[in-house]
Amino acid sequence: MFATMMHGAGDVRYEEVADPKIIAPTDAIIQLAVTSICGSDLWPYRGYGDFDGPKAMGHEYCGVVVEIGSEVKTVKKGQFVVGSFCLSDNTCPHCQYGFQSSCQQREFMTGAQAPYARIPLADGTLVGLDHLPDPSLYPDLQAVSDVLGTGWYAADAARVTPGSTAVVIGDGAVGLMAVIAAKHYGAERIIAMSRHPSRQALAKEFGATDIVAERGEEGIARVMELTRGIGAESVLECVGMEQSMQQATSIVRPGGMIGYVGVPHGVTFDGQKMFFAQSGMLGGPAPVRRFLPELLELTLARKIQPGKVFDLVLPIADVAKGYAAMDQRKAIKTLLTLGD
Amino acid sequence: MFATMMHGAGDVRYEEVADPKIIAPTDAIIQLAVTSICGSDLWPYRGYGDFDGPKAMGHEYCGVVVEIGSEVKTVKKGQFVVGSFCLSDNTCPHCQYGFQSSCQQREFMTGAQAPYARIPLADGTLVGLDHLPDPSLYPDLQAVSDVLGTGWYAADAARVTPGSTAVVIGDGAVGLMAVIAAKHYGAERIIAMSRHPSRQALAKEFGATDIVAERGEEGIARVMELTRGIGAESVLECVGMEQSMQQATSIVRPGGMIGYVGVPHGVTFDGQKMFFAQSGMLGGPAPVRRFLPELLELTLARKIQPGKVFDLVLPIADVAKGYAAMDQRKAIKTLLTLGD
Repeated sequence: MFATMMHGAGDVRYEEVADPKIIAPTDAIIQLAVTSICGSDLWPYRGYGDFDGPKAMGHEYCGVVVEIGSEVKTVKKGQFVVGSFCLSDNTCPHCQYGFQSSCQQREFMTGAQAPYARIPLADGTLVGLDHLPDPSLYPDLQAVSDVLGTGWYAADAARVTPGSTAVVIGDGAVGLMAVIAAKHYGAERIIAMSRHPSRQALAKEFGATDIVAERGEEGIARVMELTRGIGAESVLECVGMEQSMQQATSIVRPGGMIGYVGVPHGVTFDGQKMFFAQSGMLGGPAPVRRFLPELLELTLARKIQPGKVFDLVLPIADVAKGYAAMDQRKAIKTLLTLGD
Repeated sequence: MFATMMHGAGDVRYEEVADPKIIAPTDAIIQLAVTSICGSDLWPYRGYGDFDGPKAMGHEYCGVVVEIGSEVKTVKKGQFVVGSFCLSDNTCPHCQYGFQSSCQQREFMTGAQAPYARIPLADGTLVGLDHLPDPSLYPDLQAVSDVLGTGWYAADAARVTPGSTAVVIGDGAVGLMAVIAAKHYGAERIIAMSRHPSRQALAKEFGATDIVAERGEEGIARVMELTRGIGAESVLECVGMEQSMQQATSIVRPGGMIGYVGVPHGVTFDGQKMFFAQSGMLGGPAPVRRFLPELLELTLARKIQPGKVFDLVLPIADVAKGYAAMDQRKAIKTLLTLGD
């Protein structure tokens, strides 16, 4: 089959690779319904981190099971499934504690920007639907598998509660999903920090009550003004850079929580500063698996429409264009169609 | 009157000072029942931090109100009161949110190692008792005003829940109080890290189920062994040094919380490490005022006996000996009696 490979910074190709096959008896092979490009795919695309040879890209996925290993019990051939970018057994103590993203057998998904993909730990990772969903729901289900679940975790880690104020830092796909999550958790005021008109509009559609376009010290001052100098109970940090983390610690109220889901790049925290600010923090790769049943229920009932975050749709053969568009911030998130 | 003044590192004197008097209409003057030396008094005693001239020492206190300012309404002359080392109005948004230690009017108490002391923001800071307590309760009530409340906050911030595992790092007075708190919050397993036989014994009396005497990597390995490689839901960090914080982040389970109440000295956190470990954190100066009503109820009913932490009792004229004994770790905590 053809699949998406990254050969180096800025060099993404749709090229022939070996078909995926069952390796472990706990594997499943799925035929993807659609696939997509994640903001985190841009880190290697932009040359961050180590790069050791061509890499099979893609970790967001939903589709139909076409083959299962001999030990797979909870999903079957022909069933539509959604999984998480973190592969987990869903039985170890960390999974049982709701932190499947720290599963003792954790692996990270790769190779999902392709028509077919191998899903290790299928029983623990995949959640099957009772029926084949209407294709109009594919973008929503695809969003559930990573960005929605990650935004959900940001709200969960930041302990958004009914009637509270939540600030979302970052207007990428995860930040926009975090707005949906903050609304679901009952935040009365949702302040989205965004400079881009199209993203501001989507944030408002998803439930943001206030937009702060300013950044840095001005952005901090504006949030503090909106919260009457108090700060926010919950800050959902969806970027992971020094400046955004700085912003988060400056606008969270004493005793409030920062849920941070952007992988921190070059970020350190000063212990004494955090101590006297009484800033609570919890972050990490999102345990999407914990949220999947609820997210699927909301999505299938069309109570939330996370798929709206896809503002560029391309056939997968044009995947390189999708990366370029997101790199240049011409697209929030790219959906890749797989044809027949 | 005579009171305790620090003139520089290692130089504590009991010497004549001006009597405290009402300065603001929100002040009260109390006659202390007893007083005490706090572990945090040892920081300047050991030469840490800036030192700008003689300093009136002491921030732990309980006693009888002898004078009130014209605006004080909730306590009256002759009433026995207990307060916190953080002075707060208990009405501002941060106080209302339960973080009185970040009160918009916050001041830190000083001058309580003396027979009389001025308490600013008396209405917000002090909690009055209905009756004069039995003098046998003075050590307990004195412990409530700081170290017990601080240990309580460690357990609260670390979100100790019934049936969980809590690890207490630090066997100073606050660490020992944190054991009481962890037990009160229902931890099934309380692992106290302590090398000192007398402190181990007190930790066990307060509710510790396991003692880990090892430190550093060995201590981490021992806790991980005790928790079957999983780590603890809650870590109560009661020291504030690089090594102890390192220990905390190494033994908390993914999704668990570190409640840190020792003022961090030279501690920084690596964002990416905390992210992938999914270590939650909340710390700061304890909002003791939030806990005072409950702690007083428990103490007056003799359900807890935090005063047992005092293992050295000296007349206040010998205050310098009390500092020396704690500095040399010959005493956990010194109670100072005030005579008649």
